[in-house]
Amino acid sequence: MSTKNKILILNGPNLNLLGKREPTIYGSQDFESYFEEIKQKYEEVAELYYFQSNIEGEMIDKIHEIGFDFDGIVLNAGAYTHTSIAIADALAAVTTPTIEVHISNVHKREAFRHKSYLSANCVGVMAGFGLYGYQMAIDFLLQQQ
Amino acid sequence: MSTKNKILILNGPNLNLLGKREPTIYGSQDFESYFEEIKQKYEEVAELYYFQSNIEGEMIDKIHEIGFDFDGIVLNAGAYTHTSIAIADALAAVTTPTIEVHISNVHKREAFRHKSYLSANCVGVMAGFGLYGYQMAIDFLLQQQ
Amino acid sequence: MSTKNKILILNGPNLNLLGKREPTIYGSQDFESYFEEIKQKYEEVAELYYFQSNIEGEMIDKIHEIGFDFDGIVLNAGAYTHTSIAIADALAAVTTPTIEVHISNVHKREAFRHKSYLSANCVGVMAGFGLYGYQMAIDFLLQQQ
Amino acid sequence: MSTKNKILILNGPNLNLLGKREPTIYGSQDFESYFEEIKQKYEEVAELYYFQSNIEGEMIDKIHEIGFDFDGIVLNAGAYTHTSIAIADALAAVTTPTIEVHISNVHKREAFRHKSYLSANCVGVMAGFGLYGYQMAIDFLLQQQ
Amino acid sequence: MSTKNKILILNGPNLNLLGKREPTIYGSQDFESYFEEIKQKYEEVAELYYFQSNIEGEMIDKIHEIGFDFDGIVLNAGAYTHTSIAIADALAAVTTPTIEVHISNVHKREAFRHKSYLSANCVGVMAGFGLYGYQMAIDFLLQQQ
Amino acid sequence: MSTKNKILILNGPNLNLLGKREPTIYGSQDFESYFEEIKQKYEEVAELYYFQSNIEGEMIDKIHEIGFDFDGIVLNAGAYTHTSIAIADALAAVTTPTIEVHISNVHKREAFRHKSYLSANCVGVMAGFGLYGYQMAIDFLLQQQ
Amino acid sequence: MSTKNKILILNGPNLNLLGKREPTIYGSQDFESYFEEIKQKYEEVAELYYFQSNIEGEMIDKIHEIGFDFDGIVLNAGAYTHTSIAIADALAAVTTPTIEVHISNVHKREAFRHKSYLSANCVGVMAGFGLYGYQMAIDFLLQQQ
Amino acid sequence: MSTKNKILILNGPNLNLLGKREPTIYGSQDFESYFEEIKQKYEEVAELYYFQSNIEGEMIDKIHEIGFDFDGIVLNAGAYTHTSIAIADALAAVTTPTIEVHISNVHKREAFRHKSYLSANCVGVMAGFGLYGYQMAIDFLLQQQ
Amino acid sequence: MSTKNKILILNGPNLNLLGKREPTIYGSQDFESYFEEIKQKYEEVAELYYFQSNIEGEMIDKIHEIGFDFDGIVLNAGAYTHTSIAIADALAAVTTPTIEVHISNVHKREAFRHKSYLSANCVGVMAGFGLYGYQMAIDFLLQQQ
Amino acid sequence: MSTKNKILILNGPNLNLLGKREPTIYGSQDFESYFEEIKQKYEEVAELYYFQSNIEGEMIDKIHEIGFDFDGIVLNAGAYTHTSIAIADALAAVTTPTIEVHISNVHKREAFRHKSYLSANCVGVMAGFGLYGYQMAIDFLLQQQ
Amino acid sequence: MSTKNKILILNGPNLNLLGKREPTIYGSQDFESYFEEIKQKYEEVAELYYFQSNIEGEMIDKIHEIGFDFDGIVLNAGAYTHTSIAIADALAAVTTPTIEVHISNVHKREAFRHKSYLSANCVGVMAGFGLYGYQMAIDFLLQQQ
Amino acid sequence: MSTKNKILILNGPNLNLLGKREPTIYGSQDFESYFEEIKQKYEEVAELYYFQSNIEGEMIDKIHEIGFDFDGIVLNAGAYTHTSIAIADALAAVTTPTIEVHISNVHKREAFRHKSYLSANCVGVMAGFGLYGYQMAIDFLLQQQ
Repeated sequence: MSTKNKILILNGPNLNLLGKREPTIYGSQDFESYFEEIKQKYEEVAELYYFQSNIEGEMIDKIHEIGFDFDGIVLNAGAYTHTSIAIADALAAVTTPTIEVHISNVHKREAFRHKSYLSANCVGVMAGFGLYGYQMAIDFLLQQQ
Repeated sequence: MSTKNKILILNGPNLNLLGKREPTIYGSQDFESYFEEIKQKYEEVAELYYFQSNIEGEMIDKIHEIGFDFDGIVLNAGAYTHTSIAIADALAAVTTPTIEVHISNVHKREAFRHKSYLSANCVGVMAGFGLYGYQMAIDFLLQQQ
Repeated sequence: MSTKNKILILNGPNLNLLGKREPTIYGSQDFESYFEEIKQKYEEVAELYYFQSNIEGEMIDKIHEIGFDFDGIVLNAGAYTHTSIAIADALAAVTTPTIEVHISNVHKREAFRHKSYLSANCVGVMAGFGLYGYQMAIDFLLQQQ
Repeated sequence: MSTKNKILILNGPNLNLLGKREPTIYGSQDFESYFEEIKQKYEEVAELYYFQSNIEGEMIDKIHEIGFDFDGIVLNAGAYTHTSIAIADALAAVTTPTIEVHISNVHKREAFRHKSYLSANCVGVMAGFGLYGYQMAIDFLLQQQ
Repeated sequence: MSTKNKILILNGPNLNLLGKREPTIYGSQDFESYFEEIKQKYEEVAELYYFQSNIEGEMIDKIHEIGFDFDGIVLNAGAYTHTSIAIADALAAVTTPTIEVHISNVHKREAFRHKSYLSANCVGVMAGFGLYGYQMAIDFLLQQQ
Repeated sequence: MSTKNKILILNGPNLNLLGKREPTIYGSQDFESYFEEIKQKYEEVAELYYFQSNIEGEMIDKIHEIGFDFDGIVLNAGAYTHTSIAIADALAAVTTPTIEVHISNVHKREAFRHKSYLSANCVGVMAGFGLYGYQMAIDFLLQQQ
Repeated sequence: MSTKNKILILNGPNLNLLGKREPTIYGSQDFESYFEEIKQKYEEVAELYYFQSNIEGEMIDKIHEIGFDFDGIVLNAGAYTHTSIAIADALAAVTTPTIEVHISNVHKREAFRHKSYLSANCVGVMAGFGLYGYQMAIDFLLQQQ
Repeated sequence: MSTKNKILILNGPNLNLLGKREPTIYGSQDFESYFEEIKQKYEEVAELYYFQSNIEGEMIDKIHEIGFDFDGIVLNAGAYTHTSIAIADALAAVTTPTIEVHISNVHKREAFRHKSYLSANCVGVMAGFGLYGYQMAIDFLLQQQ
Repeated sequence: MSTKNKILILNGPNLNLLGKREPTIYGSQDFESYFEEIKQKYEEVAELYYFQSNIEGEMIDKIHEIGFDFDGIVLNAGAYTHTSIAIADALAAVTTPTIEVHISNVHKREAFRHKSYLSANCVGVMAGFGLYGYQMAIDFLLQQQ
Repeated sequence: MSTKNKILILNGPNLNLLGKREPTIYGSQDFESYFEEIKQKYEEVAELYYFQSNIEGEMIDKIHEIGFDFDGIVLNAGAYTHTSIAIADALAAVTTPTIEVHISNVHKREAFRHKSYLSANCVGVMAGFGLYGYQMAIDFLLQQQ
Repeated sequence: MSTKNKILILNGPNLNLLGKREPTIYGSQDFESYFEEIKQKYEEVAELYYFQSNIEGEMIDKIHEIGFDFDGIVLNAGAYTHTSIAIADALAAVTTPTIEVHISNVHKREAFRHKSYLSANCVGVMAGFGLYGYQMAIDFLLQQQ
Repeated sequence: MSTKNKILILNGPNLNLLGKREPTIYGSQDFESYFEEIKQKYEEVAELYYFQSNIEGEMIDKIHEIGFDFDGIVLNAGAYTHTSIAIADALAAVTTPTIEVHISNVHKREAFRHKSYLSANCVGVMAGFGLYGYQMAIDFLLQQQ
């Protein structure tokens, strides 16, 4: 029986374009290859899962699906961060702890990116650490166990 | 030929978790079993239908689908209540009258839950009556006929 | 010894003009005749009382007078809904549960009618169901017992 | 049978102190003696009535009482101008036309005196003409007949 | 030597269209013919002058020109009422007292028409009395002498 | 001839429920018994009077009645503190100095309780000292003589 | 090898009801028949494609799918115009130029329709030209080539 | 008798500097030469007129002059777009339909350029299509006939 | 062993100028001489200490130093009242109860002086009682023991 | 050939009244005589020009006229400072550097005088130095050469 | 010659009370002992320094002192985060990269803690990870080298 | 006995980095060398003093120290300009006149730099003139004597 931590990386809208979209802001690596890297890096201690959707409701569906069993969610909800009370409610409804991650430092960008509906329902929040932020979030979740 | 009223109960995001999610706010009964109860209670006078989705656009699709034929919609749009102009537009576009229902008294909660984009396009609005509110809405719709 | 529920219908400013005032918004029935109807309708299960005043402080006096003994208040505070912290405080001070009722759907009207100081101190709120809303409120109160 | 116009002068809170209160703003004549002057001046063409109350609800009662029979109301609602949606509703509910009058030029004073809930429900509004403003309002009402 | 009061009626943008422009709001009489009427009516007691311009700065020029000699200005600055600090400054700079007049009741119209930069620099303000308001303003100015 | 200071304690809406209403906020002593205590305590130096009303206009009437003769008013206007420009105007109109007192620390409560229309027309303001605050206010008034 | 321009018409929520929904605002022609008309009209110079969805995320998917190859997007995002930062981000992420089109003049409607999250990421914006606006947008795109 | 449409192009402040002023925003062609081009292009179907002024009131004068006879106005009011209620009133007062045009996409620029007082009084609005936008507006006006 | 209460009077920026600075607002007595007076007055029942600094952080240091041992702080933080979340945090962090005192009635002054970051972390607040307010605060603290 | 700097002093609305208008704010010297003084003072090093208009558009015309040839503009736009985006655009469009000058310290006056649309398009801004400020501006411009 | 990274941990107001202050929010470990732990943990790869001050200006002094030589700053500015433009300017002025860290999830707390003046001048920001957040920041800084 | 004017140049936070910090905004000269230059330049007519601190309270201490004896303060409070009511109070408390100087044109920068708490308590304000602005301020102070 596996005793490894189950952690979901949940990416929201437009993050499927990573590596392609505005590389000066988001970097030039696509997320799938990055995910393979960290999946291997952590394979002794954690089972990493990855899900991306551009559809707000599918992100909610996924949170419901794993949110009572997994050990952590690393959530980058993209633009829905700033507009979705529905995702915030989903996070409040489940029991799995969530870490909110943003690749860029949203505070250097438009004012509407400074507000997050999700933060108050997450354990912690981080922004500006690039893709490395996902690992920082995983490290935190593992260190909590 | 049936002369019974056709009424759709349309639930939005996270309401599929009812009974599981924050029971101090939403109660501990799941919606499906509640729906069976009231379907039977009203079966002489009304055909009740039930649809739930976490996806804003699927809710709109459903409103379009039945919104010119049914006799009423009992709508609990969950968090989309506070953010969706698109659902509000769908309600304005169809001819079936809609009743907006909230299980909890949203006015006791966060300020962002006090605003509804939908109310102005509904016949009436109610909040705080628990699951019983759905029956109050159906009673009103039937009494209107 | 009577075991019937005691319920007060408490109407605020300008509701004494019902049937006379802006009938396209408020309908053409005066409240007294409506009250007689429902008093009879509920007489087996509830003692209904009715009080109307245009004076904010008299509404508070009445809430104090019955607010520790009655089983429910059905409150339509009219325009004081939007301006009276004092009535809100009175509702918080007493133990009788209150239902806030508005005849018209206030959300279709001026923005200043969208805010209620009272809602957070009521069990539930409803608007837009015409005079029938008073019965919906009574039904809810009775169903709670 | 009298064919003279019936006009009510309706004064709100603190206007009973006229002549006594802040004479640099409101002048030094008390309203009763002024009223006697204009009652005589207009006695050929109009029956003038005068009512003052510090109680918002009593002002509403008076508007209801005469608001379907009189030919005009000259209303100085004092501070209730800026806070009373209930009086505004009373004006909307009756059929007698109302002129809103302020003795001082409220636009030279605190910002909260710049907003009137009543103006939109009056025929016209004036401020800054001293007690003479009441006569200007009466002149307008008579000229309208 | 003439001892008659000199009073300027100063009309701002679009008031030259009176009688032609939105007659449901502004009535169907053109201003020039109205001016001839009142010029005659008051000719015993006052010399009335009339100036209209669509150019903000020309209105200021006129205020400067007569603002130290005339006995009164009856000012309807039209839309500049809501945007012109420059005209407000002109009124503060001269010694002739000004009465602000609006034909329509601006408080029944768009919110941006509720704010006047000019009112605080006028003796008094009125709105909603149609063309008759100009006479009310003249009456007040004459009564002040 | 009495040379004792005349001081009115003027309590506003819901303060008649003291001891009964939300005791965790307002304490469990009723105001009448507290008033008897302090009346005796100060009887050598001051004549204390007490008036309570839930009606805004009755509070204004009382301020007018004693506001030119008494040596001080200790005013707890309850919820009218936050909404009544009319009471503020009454305080400005009279000559008796007023001390604004709140039993609870309103700054720990809802944001709408942080604003007072009355403070600018009072000598001083205090909040959070329980019933003892009334004595602090009386002490200040006596010390001023 | 085709050298014709590829242009996508992308319609958002409720635009599938065109011809059926609020005809006084949106006209009575359904979009599909209109699309056939213009497809033929432009067939010499452009390949027109049409996609409509009520689901925000499906609109994003479509923008991603064609946004690096097509010569233009004519986007009417309906109500998502006013709420979707996610679609705005999708437009910023792709290289195909987008024209924002609204059938009605949104500036004559509710204030929340005056704000667009999308405009800053489009080449140009137009509103109020009815269905003809789509052709104006196509004309512009073709004229740019 | 000419049956050609009469259309006025009305340009506001600083547009006389076109070709000279901030060419990265407004392009390098001066308006007069552009006007000659389109005058010829449309000469079969329309008589085009051109007027530019830096003076708000002169723009209003011109709107009055032609606003009851011409078939269309193509209006680029420059900075007055964002500040002039007076021009907006002029548009509402005349009967000629107006199209609001901006050369640059104002939504990519300062926030104060996002608000237009004029749009609600125009048939349609467009921004970001460069000088070509004037032709799009003319095309629309002609297509309407 | 002393059983006297230890109370710190903590004054903030510019209060060292008392007697010198704006005497119409703050009076003409310097604080040091006042402190000697009250130190003697209370010496039977309390040990009074006095600290003043113009440096926000030194005020925090002092709160930390005595905030777990003393029986009360009488705090007049001067202008830091309106800007210092750091002092507010210091008050929340210690266990000694604090009374917030202002010499002048801040509510009669600029709007930015109406907001206090500190009040919510104090037992009570008072303003407008001059130097006597310090004694009122001490009286309250002693009466609490 | 003259090598002297050409500098325009450009004054806006109501500044023609200098010496006459509100002398406690603006001083008692008229501008023309002041201009003669400084013209002489600087005649060795600069050619000073002076233009005043109450018409916003004439100010823009003047800026266009000299704004590509002169060495500096000393601009006191009076009230247009706070309302004119059109003048701001004119400053951005030309190449001559501008210094914004206000005679009075606008920050001691009404809040609407604290905002300047022009400052961001000027080299520097000053207020409160009386007429001497014009010389400070000229000194700066000369020192820059 | 040392090649180890030099990193400063810079703590602001009230963080010296860690372990003592509100342990439910900030935990019960004091910072000094935590610092000793991590100093040892990282001693192979980094020289860690620690500075705490309650004085805003001393934090600025320290940033200036090391901000051109060190390899990173881990900054928890406590309450100054929300009020200090001066510290933000200091961060912009130096060349050492800064990571903003908050022990608690500030987004679950008062609204005034949601705003940071500092974030836009930091590389990245994190909140809610307890003391472990300091290590996450150090890990990021080291990983960047 | 010296009759030279005593003038203090008082610089606030981060200005000690001048020449080092963001040279594109602030220039590349350090302040000390600049001060030596102007000290010599003015030595015949004025004794110049210089004080810089990053600590708000030390700036206040210095204002107190010299603010009753010196002939002028040239104050560049850096970021405290925008946040410090305490420094504003210090300026109001002393008698020495103060000139507010900013090296850069703050109106071209972030919105939070457009607000100054200090300006209303200074004689005049200037921004954007580089280091030369200090001399302009000294010139003004000397010219006032």
